[in-house]
Amino acid sequence: MTEPSKPAVIVIGGGEDKINERKVLRLFVSYAGASSARIAIIPSASREPHIIGKIYTDIFQELGAEYVEVLDIRDRDHAQDPTVLDRFSSVFLTGGDQVRLCNLIGDTPLAYQIRDRVHKGRLTLAGTSAGAAVMGHHMIASGISGEPPHKEMVSMGIGLGILPGIVIDQHFQNRNRMARLITAIAAHPDRLGIGIDEDTAAIFAYENSEIVDVQGSGTVTIIDPQEVTYTNQHFISGTAPLAIHNLRVHILCSGGKYHLTKRIPLTPRI
Amino acid sequence: MTEPSKPAVIVIGGGEDKINERKVLRLFVSYAGASSARIAIIPSASREPHIIGKIYTDIFQELGAEYVEVLDIRDRDHAQDPTVLDRFSSVFLTGGDQVRLCNLIGDTPLAYQIRDRVHKGRLTLAGTSAGAAVMGHHMIASGISGEPPHKEMVSMGIGLGILPGIVIDQHFQNRNRMARLITAIAAHPDRLGIGIDEDTAAIFAYENSEIVDVQGSGTVTIIDPQEVTYTNQHFISGTAPLAIHNLRVHILCSGGKYHLTKRIPLTPRI
Repeated sequence: MTEPSKPAVIVIGGGEDKINERKVLRLFVSYAGASSARIAIIPSASREPHIIGKIYTDIFQELGAEYVEVLDIRDRDHAQDPTVLDRFSSVFLTGGDQVRLCNLIGDTPLAYQIRDRVHKGRLTLAGTSAGAAVMGHHMIASGISGEPPHKEMVSMGIGLGILPGIVIDQHFQNRNRMARLITAIAAHPDRLGIGIDEDTAAIFAYENSEIVDVQGSGTVTIIDPQEVTYTNQHFISGTAPLAIHNLRVHILCSGGKYHLTKRIPLTPRI
Repeated sequence: MTEPSKPAVIVIGGGEDKINERKVLRLFVSYAGASSARIAIIPSASREPHIIGKIYTDIFQELGAEYVEVLDIRDRDHAQDPTVLDRFSSVFLTGGDQVRLCNLIGDTPLAYQIRDRVHKGRLTLAGTSAGAAVMGHHMIASGISGEPPHKEMVSMGIGLGILPGIVIDQHFQNRNRMARLITAIAAHPDRLGIGIDEDTAAIFAYENSEIVDVQGSGTVTIIDPQEVTYTNQHFISGTAPLAIHNLRVHILCSGGKYHLTKRIPLTPRI
């Protein structure tokens, strides 16, 4: 069985640089094993899996991965055999539609085995855009922006449960998703909200699993509801404005770190 | 001298209902003195002061104000005589461009006298949109959304200093302005950020000056930087991503109250 040199979960906010420095994708290849990286691309979120599979194959090969293969799962039947994972050190979930991705691979032996191997440090997993959205147990399926926060602003679904305590949002500041993530977190106050900008990654390394590292050109916004003293979430109708008191919000940029169990960002040395 | 029955500063996020229930404008008339209200409309933020002046004149008359007059200040010379205020219980600042409004009336005897009378409880002042933006000492002059927060996202100017400790933003959730207000507050961490949605008012009543009341159909977002432990604001360039740790954020809806000196939202009785 092939295993990554630095197992991690790498959650990318979409829109990562694919042409120039490719910092975020380079980072993924490095975690996956660098020149020993053996990468499975799962393009099932996309309706053009062949095209997007080819794009990432070329990039990962250019970045020096040893072996790259597209697992073009277009049917749940194709996700029944988890032993396909044996030949990979890592899995990359592309963008597209997170609901489509979960419909195709959610609750399959393949998805269970991905989660299991990630949790045991035997697989590096990255997801971008829709592939990032599925990382939590509670998943933002869709939503809107540009309105006062209210319940109907966001539709939730069930993700792959890789990072069960976290609700991810992606293209975060780029698509003005603060209100929808706050709305999602108001409904799930036992979770932590993490909003990831484009060309930016939140890295959950297996070796130091309490720390999230931020890398890339944008920001990662953390919405912590642990100290919330009041919300009307439970008794308002779908379009009525949401109230919520005492959210703690952190914005981190490249190099920033957040301690998941202490629930504090680490202060950089200046 | 005419004085309001319930002196207050009423900060409206723009886009207030002018046709149906007109709750927010009705509230202003009530604070201004109801059937004894004597209202000066200052339309100077707008490039169409005559049109906008007429719209609000009609509304305030329909809502029962005793007397309504447009102070069509188009030149700083027109803002030199503050005794014009003697015949009014209240002033209403319309929308338009906050920089234009401050260029015309900022630092004039009229503006000083408005501030002085408001601070003594002898004048009710409302502003909507641009008219809201000018309430603080530090004023958001312009800005953008849809990008990771960074210094160049927001341009600051000097407002009328009615509520000197507060940085106001308006059309707040409607125009996705969370990142720009956070950016403004990162530069002025001794202030409190208050973002007001359309058709929504934050009311600073003279009689109970420590409490902000929220009324209207949207939300008011409070960004409190008092506990911020770190920001890179001081040493990043204009386009580099902003980091800021430990912001406290509250979202209030109609009926919500916030205690300005204790810096806590009051929990509604459920």
